[in-house]
Amino acid sequence: MAQDARLAGRILGTLSGRQRTEALLAISKELEKTKNTIMAANEQDVAEAAAAGLAGPLLQRLKLSDKTFRYMTDRLIAVASLPDPLGAITKGHTRPSGLRVQRVSVPLGVVGIIYESRPNVTTDAAAVCIKSGNAVILRGGSEALRTNRLLADIMAGAAIKAGLPEKAVQIVKTADRAAVGELLQQERLIDVIIPRGGKSLIERISAESRIPVIKHYDGICHQYIAADADIDMAVVISVNSKCEKVEVCNTLETLLIDDGAVQRVLPAVATALKAQGVELRGCPRARAVTDMEPANEADWTAEYLSPILSIKVVDGIDAAIEHINNYGSGHTDGIITASIDMAERFVAGVDSASVMVNASTRLSGGGDYGLGAVVGISTDKLHARGPVGPEELTTYKWVAYGQGHLRN
Amino acid sequence: MAQDARLAGRILGTLSGRQRTEALLAISKELEKTKNTIMAANEQDVAEAAAAGLAGPLLQRLKLSDKTFRYMTDRLIAVASLPDPLGAITKGHTRPSGLRVQRVSVPLGVVGIIYESRPNVTTDAAAVCIKSGNAVILRGGSEALRTNRLLADIMAGAAIKAGLPEKAVQIVKTADRAAVGELLQQERLIDVIIPRGGKSLIERISAESRIPVIKHYDGICHQYIAADADIDMAVVISVNSKCEKVEVCNTLETLLIDDGAVQRVLPAVATALKAQGVELRGCPRARAVTDMEPANEADWTAEYLSPILSIKVVDGIDAAIEHINNYGSGHTDGIITASIDMAERFVAGVDSASVMVNASTRLSGGGDYGLGAVVGISTDKLHARGPVGPEELTTYKWVAYGQGHLRN
Repeated sequence: MAQDARLAGRILGTLSGRQRTEALLAISKELEKTKNTIMAANEQDVAEAAAAGLAGPLLQRLKLSDKTFRYMTDRLIAVASLPDPLGAITKGHTRPSGLRVQRVSVPLGVVGIIYESRPNVTTDAAAVCIKSGNAVILRGGSEALRTNRLLADIMAGAAIKAGLPEKAVQIVKTADRAAVGELLQQERLIDVIIPRGGKSLIERISAESRIPVIKHYDGICHQYIAADADIDMAVVISVNSKCEKVEVCNTLETLLIDDGAVQRVLPAVATALKAQGVELRGCPRARAVTDMEPANEADWTAEYLSPILSIKVVDGIDAAIEHINNYGSGHTDGIITASIDMAERFVAGVDSASVMVNASTRLSGGGDYGLGAVVGISTDKLHARGPVGPEELTTYKWVAYGQGHLRN
Repeated sequence: MAQDARLAGRILGTLSGRQRTEALLAISKELEKTKNTIMAANEQDVAEAAAAGLAGPLLQRLKLSDKTFRYMTDRLIAVASLPDPLGAITKGHTRPSGLRVQRVSVPLGVVGIIYESRPNVTTDAAAVCIKSGNAVILRGGSEALRTNRLLADIMAGAAIKAGLPEKAVQIVKTADRAAVGELLQQERLIDVIIPRGGKSLIERISAESRIPVIKHYDGICHQYIAADADIDMAVVISVNSKCEKVEVCNTLETLLIDDGAVQRVLPAVATALKAQGVELRGCPRARAVTDMEPANEADWTAEYLSPILSIKVVDGIDAAIEHINNYGSGHTDGIITASIDMAERFVAGVDSASVMVNASTRLSGGGDYGLGAVVGISTDKLHARGPVGPEELTTYKWVAYGQGHLRN
């Protein structure tokens, strides 16, 4: 598979942007046409998983609804409409000798995506890879095998009909775990591995892989309510950051509140959060102002992914920045303030992939940043940081044009 | 050291471009002032290494000449004069909701450089790191310990006097190998490791490191002489690519010559190379035209770093591209042709960090690309490919400015 992918990637990388865009539109249409078959396969997967004891949010994630299906085909069109990430001349100059030097964006080559049950990753990942001229090897969760295989086969068929090379889109068709182990050894044939799933999956893959891994670790996200924060804004942003969806990586996990704002703002914020059913766990100074459970040291590094929020009172912006850099995960952190100076100090000081000023942490991500679809949110600093879309799946080559230029 | 570096990096990253530039100029001046002391320390290192049996090119690399010294101080000034790589807004837009989203370049944080004997790496690496707002931990070869320690101390002193935080520039002051092992475990405190040296050093560090490594592997560089190549250009580019300096990574190791050019061009090229003392090893078809040693399979993957060149006759440009992608190391590969079509097919098809059109492979690199100084030439595809200068030691953060923006 990896060898086939390498060859497919070489061809795919030389196709025009128009060819790649038209393939994505053709895939979207083909999925629409075969919707009933896909939904039927998914029902079988869901029934089997339910019989095997899968339940609650995991079963929910496996299930394709009409809405999810529409979302999948729409994202293919959204990715198709993005500007071509290939062939961008991102640097260029003519040297004193007349040598013309250019830095040009090109595909990475072959991308491996290893993910858990959500079937829309299959279509999102394939779309982002095709857009960026990369061949892709997909490996989804075993519960969704039937759905994912069918999605991948339909996409591959439509892609070939649209002029893309065979094997540009491939899926591992066995649930055997050893297949992943073998995949991770192909460092000559696969250029990057992107795991999407829980922390244990990512740690296991990073430890085992000989191929570079773009990691997507946890989001221990903060909002810092500065001393001058507007009370209404503090309330709505805290509630939206925490409650809009609790089980995702950019949801709020710790609220930092400045000592100068705590008496004025905390009671209203706490009341609004409790009204949404959020359990609050606070430091002693927060508990002195509003009734809540006590927080212990483990709460500052917890990614709850559930309706729990830790609250800490801090003495000034430097203490807030220090807390975030020490306890956070560098995913998404925000400040609520009316002051330009505070905002700029916070943006400069917080070492995170996304920094929000007067905005919900839930707004960090490919969709809200206007990147179309993404294959993950990187918490690494190298190569890609934050949303990983088509542009982040490119590298570049340097091209020098001479007329017999020599080194002296 | 790593903890100190992390704190220093946090401060360094918030200084202005002017402060970082002025520190580099101050360091250059301070080195000039203390030149005699540095040269004396270096003489001691050289004498000790010679007594211990070090000889030839290794001893040569250790020795600071007036020319090397001038080169070191000049490079500091060259790096100082580069545009600031920090604070560049590399992407930005206002979303339909009014949320303003920006992608801004920021330092990586802490960079670890592990290198062999050449002392100018000490100043080059520190310059590139300071320019890009990164704290640096240097670990040079044990033979150059006295020179490197002195250089690092002088640089650190001048940097502090110029307003940079303490510990922005640090050097490991022990020759103990265990120190490197410990350094490579500090993945929370060091953001990237850049090894500079032989393949075995790089492999050992990559295997051991928990920190991401930017690798600088071998250069198995090619020139492909197309059927239509100008004979004079083929001669001068081949000779310069191979002979200008044989022991460096962008020197020519394999010459591919098109079947349509072999009778016309090979005799002149071979004569010119032999006149420079280069040993030629050819495939049977090359040997049928010009007298040379036979090449075996191992020659196609050899990085000679010496006056030896392998020569292979290929049938057309696709065969040339395939040979390069299969046997090369993705470092630097060139084509000699008069045809736009050939040049564009070669540039698109060859999967290498640098592709040269009618120019010597020796022209690939930071200096000739106008990047000032570099800390290495990456053969990786992720993050940095080709020369690693100040811009390549940055990452970015996404900053979103709202006025109470929520996710719906």
